[in-house]
Parts: sequence; structure tokens; C-alpha cells
Amino acid sequence: MMDCPLLLRSFLTRTARFFPKKEIVSIYPDEVFRYTYGDYYKRVCQFAHALESLGVKRGDRVASIALNTHRHLELYFGVPCMGAVLHTANFRLPQHHLAYILNHAEDKVVFVDEDLLLFLEGLKDQLTTVKHFVVLSQTGKMPETSLSPVYLYDDLIAKFPQEYDFPDDLDEKSPALMCYTSATTGDPKGVVYTHRSIYLHSFAGAATFGVYEQDCMLHIVPMFHANAWGMPFLAVGMGIKQILPGRETLNMEKICRAIAEEKVTATCGVPTIWLMLYNYLEKGGWHDFSTLRVIASGGSACPRYLMEGLNEKYNFPIRQAYGATETSPLASAALEKSYMKDWPMDKIYDARASAGILAIGLDIRIVNDKGEDVKMDGKEWGEIWLRGPWIASEYYKDPERSKASFEGGWLHMGDVATIDEEGYIRLVDRTKDLVKSGGEWISSVDLENIIMSHPKVMEAAVIGIPDPKWQEVPMACVVTSTGQELTEEELNDFLKDKVKASYWIPKKYCFLKELPKTSVGKFDKRGLREQFAQGTIA
Amino acid sequence: MMDCPLLLRSFLTRTARFFPKKEIVSIYPDEVFRYTYGDYYKRVCQFAHALESLGVKRGDRVASIALNTHRHLELYFGVPCMGAVLHTANFRLPQHHLAYILNHAEDKVVFVDEDLLLFLEGLKDQLTTVKHFVVLSQTGKMPETSLSPVYLYDDLIAKFPQEYDFPDDLDEKSPALMCYTSATTGDPKGVVYTHRSIYLHSFAGAATFGVYEQDCMLHIVPMFHANAWGMPFLAVGMGIKQILPGRETLNMEKICRAIAEEKVTATCGVPTIWLMLYNYLEKGGWHDFSTLRVIASGGSACPRYLMEGLNEKYNFPIRQAYGATETSPLASAALEKSYMKDWPMDKIYDARASAGILAIGLDIRIVNDKGEDVKMDGKEWGEIWLRGPWIASEYYKDPERSKASFEGGWLHMGDVATIDEEGYIRLVDRTKDLVKSGGEWISSVDLENIIMSHPKVMEAAVIGIPDPKWQEVPMACVVTSTGQELTEEELNDFLKDKVKASYWIPKKYCFLKELPKTSVGKFDKRGLREQFAQGTIA
Repeated sequence: MMDCPLLLRSFLTRTARFFPKKEIVSIYPDEVFRYTYGDYYKRVCQFAHALESLGVKRGDRVASIALNTHRHLELYFGVPCMGAVLHTANFRLPQHHLAYILNHAEDKVVFVDEDLLLFLEGLKDQLTTVKHFVVLSQTGKMPETSLSPVYLYDDLIAKFPQEYDFPDDLDEKSPALMCYTSATTGDPKGVVYTHRSIYLHSFAGAATFGVYEQDCMLHIVPMFHANAWGMPFLAVGMGIKQILPGRETLNMEKICRAIAEEKVTATCGVPTIWLMLYNYLEKGGWHDFSTLRVIASGGSACPRYLMEGLNEKYNFPIRQAYGATETSPLASAALEKSYMKDWPMDKIYDARASAGILAIGLDIRIVNDKGEDVKMDGKEWGEIWLRGPWIASEYYKDPERSKASFEGGWLHMGDVATIDEEGYIRLVDRTKDLVKSGGEWISSVDLENIIMSHPKVMEAAVIGIPDPKWQEVPMACVVTSTGQELTEEELNDFLKDKVKASYWIPKKYCFLKELPKTSVGKFDKRGLREQFAQGTIA
Repeated sequence: MMDCPLLLRSFLTRTARFFPKKEIVSIYPDEVFRYTYGDYYKRVCQFAHALESLGVKRGDRVASIALNTHRHLELYFGVPCMGAVLHTANFRLPQHHLAYILNHAEDKVVFVDEDLLLFLEGLKDQLTTVKHFVVLSQTGKMPETSLSPVYLYDDLIAKFPQEYDFPDDLDEKSPALMCYTSATTGDPKGVVYTHRSIYLHSFAGAATFGVYEQDCMLHIVPMFHANAWGMPFLAVGMGIKQILPGRETLNMEKICRAIAEEKVTATCGVPTIWLMLYNYLEKGGWHDFSTLRVIASGGSACPRYLMEGLNEKYNFPIRQAYGATETSPLASAALEKSYMKDWPMDKIYDARASAGILAIGLDIRIVNDKGEDVKMDGKEWGEIWLRGPWIASEYYKDPERSKASFEGGWLHMGDVATIDEEGYIRLVDRTKDLVKSGGEWISSVDLENIIMSHPKVMEAAVIGIPDPKWQEVPMACVVTSTGQELTEEELNDFLKDKVKASYWIPKKYCFLKELPKTSVGKFDKRGLREQFAQGTIA
């Protein structure tokens, strides 16, 4: 067989040649911009020349601080296909972390959305390696900015030829993209994706959901969040029509209109989005989901009531997927198997609401305290370990923390899970969030879900706090629904028959106006633990 | 990213662990045998031990002479996953060629279906490397045979453990399977597939047709014919239910019953099969195709009337695919693009009846006499050249003929084609079958199609014969429909307004009872040319 490297170039050039009329739709507040893969390719070529003109060479890192737009999609292929590495920076990180990652990646150029200039201007003086700034703008005009030297993307690329000879001699294991993941402690950790890993991940994603050229994809997941879960790569590769909602990502009216008008068949998102959608629909929001077939949810657990409500009332069938920045991110997906079609709906929701079945191409172990694989009984707990061609093997320039997470050639996910006889993985907790009380484990996530099933509770986070007798006891931080009053006694009463054992009942409650969240919208338990260790309550 | 090799082991073990209840159905004349991937895996493990016990080591070749059965599917994974190479031998080859390929591959063991013993017994004394014969039988009894030493497969594997530690340290470029393709002249030529090439080809096949776990596949294409077009690999990889029709492959009643009862969604076959199916249906044969979604046709051109008839009357929507043993085989597939859905049906059939659009992951050139790429205008002719990770780079132990076919790092397909502005490839002819008359090219295939559109003509083959004035002129070998009489004058009259130019009209006709066919059912033009060079007429 021919020794052809697996390069993103192959995805790009085939689609440009054979699907030049297929569309890319980029939604802006005042405009729906549409162009074709033919146009897209010409601009990607111009952009590759522009990168060269800025002195970007093979292996160099350049950063994007950008929303889901057609220009960002140009960066997605232009940078890696010319041999450089696109660092998609999460602008929602705290400013000092954003500066840290741009410096740690040694980014030479930063491409920044006009709308996101503020995130960059505040830290520009801390940047040690950036030589150029380029503004992505739909207005055609350079905005006022303190960045320097700074160019307007469209002007920068305009003067270059619409053909580029993308190299086909790159090693398939060359870096193509990189992302940083916020760490529990310390600075964010970098993950470098290769051409090979993205290529294979694209195929595995398509194979998991049965996605192909006939589909139409809407990218709700931010393009800095684990590469929008890899969907833009497989979409370009297969010539799939793509919808990029940019600043309108959280505008449920526009999202619903895009789904209906563009005939979207596949989308991905985090539960926060699905909750916004549900609220919009419950208020009678206009929608037509008749073309939708694939809806993947990830990032954090999607509450079951939300999955059921969206499906039963609105024919919006969510399936969960599981992964992390370190896993490209697809590690598992919660589709019901073909023979489950006739199962009762509640059993089907059990499957869909799990973390799913291991993705094709990967290997998994779920390992208990003693280093043994847990039984596939849906009960035994263990930590998820993963291995495979799109699983990271290290953190970028961070041998110390790499050692801890990648011991023995497996990625240790830090997630505690069960696996049932059908192979469905169910997350129990983060290893570090488990509460160990009197020698017995308590799942903070299970306990939170029970507490959140109380009609007056909107959100709850459970952490372990020190206890002289039991070493650790559970404490619940609770946010009540608007206008609702709730007491510890009411909650204890409610929990009595629902928890697995009496020691699961929180020894302490704390009622908050809102729970602190991380930059990707998860409960910030580390913050809570720090607060309560210091004795301060927000 | 982790340096994990792309091995078939990963497809096998994931499905065994997480889809153990999904079914494999193997149809025998007196029995429909079904078992699960759980059972399958246990037998594949036993079989791997058995191979070891026969002295089979990494890299050794073993042959199968077998129909599409569950035992053959066990060989498909058992052999490569333990590190050896499965040579799927085409028993329809002439006996001396069959002996040649078993010797040329240096097969150590031959696995042979009880029903196919005759093919092997006649040539067993010519075999130079085979140490053992193993009979695949559903009866549980050793048939009478002159082969020696010979074992019954089920007995051979029965004594071994149902667990096997399949190696994960194979190089992904290790050989996994091999096939021989009958050459125009000389001995058959061997193509070796690697773990990597099969792994990638599986994903590309799935991505092309949107096939995934929810599908159910019926394997009509013989498992010795370019690995049943790779479908068994992707089916095992994705935990897809598979139907193997064995000796009943040509029994249209049983095929139709299997499609309906097993709820088949995807199948592949050659036009000969579709013609048999059409005849069966036209006679009122029972069928229910309501679950069928993907039907790929390849091997030779599927006549348009057949595609239209099957779709219009029976809701059986065939799409053509194009490839060869050297291309694993998927090179292109003729699906209409998403935006063509509303096109008039005749334009859609134009797309479906083409050789299709280049498969994801490959690269193509269509090169004219001057070595230039032809225009994408649907008119210019050129030879198809292919490149990609599942395209062969050589013929096995045959540097001489490898040089001719793989010059410059591209596979030269020997097919002449056009490519239109949408990227659809249309085969014009085989390079060697083109007729060059007075300096002008004539496509034998186009001319055959025009002749075959005559209501009294069943089959026609066009070859070039020597001519003192025009160097070469077209000659047509014609088979009339049963009971029909036809004259040269009638045909000349019919062709007059239909051919592209008057020099296309055959200078000579020959009416035959049937056309000679090759072992894979194509018109044997080489045979015809030899006959007419020698002046003999069948």
C-alpha cells in the first residue's frame, strides 16, 4: 500500500475540487453571510500565503481568539495545511491564564475577532512571543485598537494568489492544532493534536453518528472548545454544509431559525445551551426540527428531565457524548444500539443519558483502587483510562503533570465511572470530587442529582469538608429556584428515603444566590472547597 | 498524541466487548445459522490458537477458498489479528491460475469450504508450500477428500481456549490480507493489504455511505472479491449486524427473504446480481425492500435501464461505486450530492450511473495522452491515476509489472474516463480496449451501450481489428435476445443517427450465442481479440 501521510490537506483539497458549490453559512448579527467551499478554498490559499508573509514557518504556533465564523474556519485549515499549528485560545479563561497560554504556546501571530479585542488588549503587554495581531472583522474596517502591529485579515489576504501548493510531505504526526485545558490546580495544560489524530478522529466521529455528505451541521460548540469537538474537520472533509452562528450562538430564536431554514441535520452543544433552548421553546418559541437527526451533548452531564422534555415535547433527541480536551474529544457516545429500538423509552433514555459506549478505534480500562478492571455490572466504580490514536500522550512542555496523567501509556481521566453489561459507561464523579466519609465513598454527582430533584432546588454542588470523626463529610451548596424558600430540615426529610445510605445526607448546607462556575460552565468545586476551607461564604 | 498502531485487533476487541449481543447470520441451504459477536469472538480466539498450533507465524500466508459464511468471517479477523496474512483465493480462476496464486503467495495452510473441495483437489499435487488443509463445513462431519493432511475446522479449533491475547505491537503497515487480480496477460497479480489500509478504507467506506452501527449489512459480493469490498471489516468494526448468504447468494428468493426478515439496510453487488434480482422481481417475486437505504454496485457498469427499473418499480436505489483490487477497492462512489435532491430524476440517474466522486482520503488525476490533467468538462478523456493510503504501491513479488502500473507513485488504472464539473467520473473505456481508427479514438464501451440499446440485442462487445486503411476498425460481437433475428443492415441503420461519427459504425459484425466472460463476469475482450486474430469464431 502507498505510504501516504494522513494530512488535513487531503480533506481540504478534495472538497474544494469536488464539492465547490456546497455552502458554508456564517451568521452575523446584521447579516447571514454565505459562500461556497470553492470560495472558501480560494481564501484559505490566500491566507496560507499571508501566513508565510508574516514569517510563519512549519511548526510555528499561531493563535485564534475567535467565535464560530467562516474566518475562523479558514484558520482551521489554512494554518495546519501550510504546516503551522493553530492554537485555538479560550478567551473565557481568566486574563492571566489567557496570557499564560499565548506565551506558553509561543504564539507568533494572534488572530482576534473584532468582538473579542477587549480580551486581548488588556493583556497585550504581557505577551512575550507575539509579533503580529490580525483582526477578523465582517465590517471591512479596522476597529480602533491598541494592538500593534495590527492588520485587518481581509486586507492582509486580499493581495495574495487564490492558489497555494499545500505541502504533501508533512509527517502525519506533525502538530496541527492545540488547545489548553483549565487545570484543577495551576496553569492550563496544553494538548497538541496532529494531522493524523484529527484525521482519524474525524472518521470516528462520522462513524459514530452515521454522518456524511448529505448532512448539514450547525456548530454550537465554540471552536476553541476542543476544536468544536472536531466537527468542522469532518464537515470540511466530507463536503458537509456548515452553519457557523458566531455571536448569535446563544440567540435561540436565530438558532431555531437556522436549523429550520438551512435544514440542519446534526449539531452538538453543552447542556447550558439545551437549557436555554428548552426555556425558549417552553415560552412558545418558533421552531421546526424536522430535519434534525443527530444531536450530541457533552461538556457536562445533561439533566435527564431536559433530554426527555426536549425529545418528548419538541422532537429534539439528544444523545450524550463523553470526552475531554485530551481525547480530541470523542471518547464515547450514548446512542442506543440497533436492537434497543423497541425498548421502552425510559430504558432508551437510560442509554442516551449515560456517557455512552467507547468510540470505535479506542481502548478503555475502568480501574478500581486495587488497579483491577471493574466488572461490567453497572455497579463497581473505577477510574476511566483511555488509549488510542487520538488520545493525548502528554501535556505540552509539562513533563511533571504529564507524568501524573499519562502513567503507563494510558490517559487517566480523573473520572470515576461504572460500566454496565451493554458497555454503557456512567460517570459517578470526578476522582477528586468523591467524598470519603468513614471509609465509605459518596458520589458528589449522585448526591447533587438527588438534591436537584427537589422541586424548589435549581442547582446544587456537593463537596467534602473535614470532619474530626468521619475524616470527611458531605456539604451541599444549594441555589433555590427564584422566590423559593427552603430549610435544611426540609431537604433532610426529602433526602431520607432517596440516598443510598444515611451517611450520604449532608452534614452541612449552604444556601447561595448562585454557584461559582468555571470558564466552561461547570460547577467550580475547587473554588467552593477553597472558600469553605477559608471559612468565607459568597 | 499516543503512538497507537491502526490494527484490525482494535475493531475486533471493541465489538466483542461492547456489542456482544449483535448478530451474525450465515445462510446455508438447509439452515439459517445465527450467532452473536460474543460467540464469534470466542471462536476467532480459538481459531487463532489453532493457527499457532499449525505452525503459522507472523507474516505467514494462509489461504481461504470459501464462500460468504460465518467461518470465512472468522478467518477474516483471526488470521490478521494474530499477525498472519489471509489470502482470499478466487476459486473461479482457471485451475492453473488458482494453483499459481497459492504457490506464489506461499500459502502454508488452505482453508476450504466443503462445497469447494473440487476446486482444490484437482490441483493439490501442484501445490509447493501448503502444509495443511482445513475443511470448513456446516455439517460437522469430515467429507470424503483426497486432501492430506486435512482437518475439520470446527474440530480443529474446539480444543483451544476462547480467549486469545491478540498482539497490539504489530506495525500498522504489516500485511493483513491479500488478493490476486486476474491480469490481462500473464499470471494473476497479487495485492497485499495492510492493517492500516483496511482500517482506513473501512472508515472511508462508512463515511461515503453514512453507514454505522444502526445498519444491517448483507454481503452479496464474494469475500474473495477484493475482500467483499471491505464491508465485513467495517461491519465488525462498528458492531453492525451482518448477513452472509453463502451458497444462497444467487438464490433471489432467499436473498429477498433475508433482506426483509433481517431488515437489511445496506448491501453491495455486481450488475449480474441486480439483473438476476430484476428478473426475479419481474416474475412477481416476493420482496420487501422498505429497510434498504444503501445499495452499491460495482465490478462493471450497471446498465442504466436496470438501475432505473429497480428503483422506479421496486424502490431499490442502486448507486455505482468504482474501484479495483488495487484500490481496496473503494476509489469513488456515485451518490448524488445533497443539493441535487430536488433535481429531475434523469439527472439524478446520470449521477448515480457514473463512476462517482473520488472517495474521501484519496487523490486523483485524469491524464491525457500528453500527460496533462483533463478539464472537468465531462468531455475530455484521460487515464485515471489514483493515490492514497489504501491504494496499492506494487504487485506482490512482481517488480516488472509493478513498474508499469505504479509509475511515479500513482496507480495507473488503465481506465479511460471523463470528469464533469461536479466531479463525477465517467468511464469511457479500458485504455487497452479503446479502438483507434484513422487516428480517432472510439470508446468500445460507448459503442457497446448504443448497440445494446437496440431492442433485439441482449449483449454486445466491441473490439478493434486490424485494417489496412484505418489501421484499426471497430468490430461488434453481438448476442441477440432469445428467438430474435438481426442483420448487419438493421444494426447499421439503427446506429446511423446514434453514433458520434460515421467511423464509429462497426466495419464487421459477428453474431454469437453468448459472449465469453472472465472469472469475475466481465466481457472477455482479450479472448475475443485472440479468437479473431486467429480467425476462429465460436
